[in-house]
Amino acid sequence: MLMGMRPFVFVNVAATADGKIDTWERKGATISSVLDKERVDRLRAESDAIMVGGRTLLDEDPKLTVKSEALRAERVARGLPPNPIKVGVVSQARIRPDSAFLTAGPARILIFTTTSTPADQLERLRARGVDVFVHPGPRVDLSQALATLWEFGVRRLMVEGGGTLNFELLRLGLVDEWNVYIAPMIFGGATAPTPAMGSGLAREQAIPLRLVDSQVHPDGGVVLRYVLPSKSP
Amino acid sequence: MLMGMRPFVFVNVAATADGKIDTWERKGATISSVLDKERVDRLRAESDAIMVGGRTLLDEDPKLTVKSEALRAERVARGLPPNPIKVGVVSQARIRPDSAFLTAGPARILIFTTTSTPADQLERLRARGVDVFVHPGPRVDLSQALATLWEFGVRRLMVEGGGTLNFELLRLGLVDEWNVYIAPMIFGGATAPTPAMGSGLAREQAIPLRLVDSQVHPDGGVVLRYVLPSKSP
Repeated sequence: MLMGMRPFVFVNVAATADGKIDTWERKGATISSVLDKERVDRLRAESDAIMVGGRTLLDEDPKLTVKSEALRAERVARGLPPNPIKVGVVSQARIRPDSAFLTAGPARILIFTTTSTPADQLERLRARGVDVFVHPGPRVDLSQALATLWEFGVRRLMVEGGGTLNFELLRLGLVDEWNVYIAPMIFGGATAPTPAMGSGLAREQAIPLRLVDSQVHPDGGVVLRYVLPSKSP
Repeated sequence: MLMGMRPFVFVNVAATADGKIDTWERKGATISSVLDKERVDRLRAESDAIMVGGRTLLDEDPKLTVKSEALRAERVARGLPPNPIKVGVVSQARIRPDSAFLTAGPARILIFTTTSTPADQLERLRARGVDVFVHPGPRVDLSQALATLWEFGVRRLMVEGGGTLNFELLRLGLVDEWNVYIAPMIFGGATAPTPAMGSGLAREQAIPLRLVDSQVHPDGGVVLRYVLPSKSP
């Protein structure tokens, strides 16, 4: 493997017009419209894998499957599995056996975790066919995780949050595209989660984006697609 | 005065593509482009008064004047003062005598504050011609402040943040229009300020918006204009 080979990485977030991806309650508030859910489903169907971070995985328990039967059939017709690989990045993988993340499918599942996850939990995950990668540091090494995904044949990776994972990927220069759906609503809240969280950047380190597409839905939803400047020479 | 007579209130915020109005450092990071600053200047010139909250006033010390000489001249030609009234909403009005807020002008200045502001500070502000209104509660009564502004002839009020003032006005149903400029950049930061902060709303209390205009600037900036549903029957 060549050093640094990684999939094309695009983030998709749904936010309110005041920049929130959930309410302060963090119960996985619905923000996307029906129309936007169709867009997200197409993005999923076009991806080889879909990644979420620990808090999203444990709190929201997303299915991460392709909802449309027609899109799943298209994938199969192209020789792909019906659903993309599900990827969880979670320091301590306390995932419930009956979680939608583990049970909704069929889909291959990869978990990147750390030595904080107890051995019996790792065993239980592996016993049900999950590929588990244990990184030695306090947090998952995202560059290494992307290299592993590349080895698994993942060329196009969709990241569906949350804000901490999004920011870490951005900070490390591992994001190629930033998609944001802006819903016509306001949540407010100083503690409500936002599309990119973590420690944050100083003004002179802000990540510049290039807007490549904007769509306005009939219901007032807005989709903005940005590309990030390439880090290569 | 009729109960509830208040100006038309519109909020204008500049945010990043990850929903931040400043970096976590809160030093008043520049987010607007040159093009957007012209748009904001026109909005100011079309307003009777411009309101900011305490943290914005004390930390960022905005001038709040109309930058364009031509726009100021237009106002004067219409029989208006060159600059709109500057309005500060600040629980404890520790405003420096040499602040841009107090010195940039000419402009009439109104301060809404509480009994937390020491009497000598109130005197100093009044001695330099500032109209100071002291509300009895722990915080400024925004409905009362808007009623007072109406009495001062303010029919169109521009609110320039920050997130706490924006949210309080939204929560009280005192906002008619929400304008957001989205800059093609990412700051990140779990603690970086956002367009609407405060305690936040639960999902079922989210404030619905209606998108009435969207503009895409050549440099990738996006301006979205929303109206809020009328509270009247």
